[in-house]
Amino acid sequence: MGRALSLSEGRVELAHGAGGLATHQLVEALFLPAFAPTLAAWRDRGVVVDDDGVVLPEGCVPAGHRLVQSVDAHVVSPLFFPGGDIGTLAVHGTVNDLAMMGATPVSLTVAFVLEEGLPLAELQRIARSIGAAAVEAGVAVVAGDTKVVERGKADGCFVSVSGLGHVAPDVHLSGRRARAGDVVLISGSVGDHGVAVLSRRQGLELETPTLSDTACLFPLVRPLLALGDRLRLLRDPTRGGLATTLNEIAWASGVGFDIDEAAIPVAPAVAGACELLGLDPLYLANEGKAVVVCAPDVADTALALLRNHPLGGSAAVIGRVVDDDTRSVVLRTPLGGTRVLDWLMGDPLPRIC
Amino acid sequence: MGRALSLSEGRVELAHGAGGLATHQLVEALFLPAFAPTLAAWRDRGVVVDDDGVVLPEGCVPAGHRLVQSVDAHVVSPLFFPGGDIGTLAVHGTVNDLAMMGATPVSLTVAFVLEEGLPLAELQRIARSIGAAAVEAGVAVVAGDTKVVERGKADGCFVSVSGLGHVAPDVHLSGRRARAGDVVLISGSVGDHGVAVLSRRQGLELETPTLSDTACLFPLVRPLLALGDRLRLLRDPTRGGLATTLNEIAWASGVGFDIDEAAIPVAPAVAGACELLGLDPLYLANEGKAVVVCAPDVADTALALLRNHPLGGSAAVIGRVVDDDTRSVVLRTPLGGTRVLDWLMGDPLPRIC
Repeated sequence: MGRALSLSEGRVELAHGAGGLATHQLVEALFLPAFAPTLAAWRDRGVVVDDDGVVLPEGCVPAGHRLVQSVDAHVVSPLFFPGGDIGTLAVHGTVNDLAMMGATPVSLTVAFVLEEGLPLAELQRIARSIGAAAVEAGVAVVAGDTKVVERGKADGCFVSVSGLGHVAPDVHLSGRRARAGDVVLISGSVGDHGVAVLSRRQGLELETPTLSDTACLFPLVRPLLALGDRLRLLRDPTRGGLATTLNEIAWASGVGFDIDEAAIPVAPAVAGACELLGLDPLYLANEGKAVVVCAPDVADTALALLRNHPLGGSAAVIGRVVDDDTRSVVLRTPLGGTRVLDWLMGDPLPRIC
Repeated sequence: MGRALSLSEGRVELAHGAGGLATHQLVEALFLPAFAPTLAAWRDRGVVVDDDGVVLPEGCVPAGHRLVQSVDAHVVSPLFFPGGDIGTLAVHGTVNDLAMMGATPVSLTVAFVLEEGLPLAELQRIARSIGAAAVEAGVAVVAGDTKVVERGKADGCFVSVSGLGHVAPDVHLSGRRARAGDVVLISGSVGDHGVAVLSRRQGLELETPTLSDTACLFPLVRPLLALGDRLRLLRDPTRGGLATTLNEIAWASGVGFDIDEAAIPVAPAVAGACELLGLDPLYLANEGKAVVVCAPDVADTALALLRNHPLGGSAAVIGRVVDDDTRSVVLRTPLGGTRVLDWLMGDPLPRIC
């Protein structure tokens, strides 16, 4: 059956994406071992992964729950960075999108576009990261696809992950549900992921190395669902940062925001790196933070629930939703002034996720 | 709110993938109009597409049906070819994977990786192809994501599409279910897609231009589900061609195949092009053909059902499943000899889908 695959020395070849014997070997030797642990919970339920599609076990969506889907493509450069890699990022990105809908994540599909010449050892490291992040998030990797393009026609590895989850009948979170008087919280410090990737990319020697905050947010936000209708929405401020996420909500809900700059947690190392590089942490990507908007009477409870989880230790109330026909996000500065926080313009930091 | 987007003259910029204002404009002006028609059936059911994920309407999966997922990445070059483009291909690839499981397709997610500089007019054409193919297939495009990489770091446009479908309780198709005595059918001629893409790529002037067979196979194969347990499996012989698909089934089921070469339909133009180029049509990709394996007593019915649909007009019985510990696919040639059809080795035709 052709040459054996050397995972330690080999490189991705066009044949690995041709759908023939080499693809079959790659799946058997590299992907299935990496993803099998994610199927452990379904081991005795007859899930077959070598067909064109995968039939999920009966009962993996509770009766009466609605289905939720999401998708994220990842092109981060470099592929490996302090605190994570493109594999962990791809799982967290999609699982967090489900979690922000109040959904319990169930399963993922993974599609790779690989550049000819990528070391198989790097691909294996990425696949194992996907498997490990999926196990930690409690989701099954149920289907995958791999395409390979010629050297120079892609940049190492691009990964797209789609997710399926389910949401209870009484959960209706949406960016359209913010209303004047609501309170805005953030689950922790902003800008860590952006600085972590940038420091690796630029070879910066920061005094305090910053790790990406990439993490699965479902365990952090699940307790908030008990707040019922008074929890309005959840959002993870990834690309575009906190500033853009708030603008998206303002746009969708037809409201404005009154945000207290001093209340927004920023790690000292991130603040320092941003000053050095001329970046604004409010526009940097986060991969393990949630924006929470809730009714004022449950804001204290929401804050306590967030702080009760290790990922939410530095959670903070950062502002309020206000009536505003211009849908502006207004930042109150520590010196008592105000400035309008616009959407991210251009792309100061390409390929951050 | 920044510069307006010129869909006729503009090009993809890094900012379109940054998640800020330019991304928002691209989604509003280009993607939503292209995909909105796919949501028409759910128009009055409150589907919101501007959140991190999408909640599907209640009842889109019938009670008692199991969920099916699939995913395909597409990197075909060129992006546009006779009979289709990367958009139609991406929808059909994923919908057909669901159909081959006996599943009714419900919804798709779409992830783009774009190269800086791609004309927006081309992206719009691709997005509209996705929308049109999805409407024809009866599936909703519910979520998307777009990333942009620097000029030279990707090749125009890569698309990954994941699909969700549902399967009735009594349907259990799998590549593992072929058994000795079963009959093998193909729904039509092989090699068309491979020749169509290759002819455009090489600028070949073929006497009879060949169109890709890219098509949604669900309407073709749905009637076969009435055969119940005697329908063993369906497979679409895409990358790797018919030869590789038969090997995959032989491998998964632990059987061999006895195939009659003369019975395999090959269009004269495809046969001619293959002879000219030194290619074997049995290893060329198909994007609108199904391999059917069924019990012998329903083979005539299966053939009649296939031929009853426009996509199956040249359907044929091409061979049988046999006991064979070596899991070989043996081809009987018109001259009475035999040869073993192996898996596709290497990649004679990169980026065919």
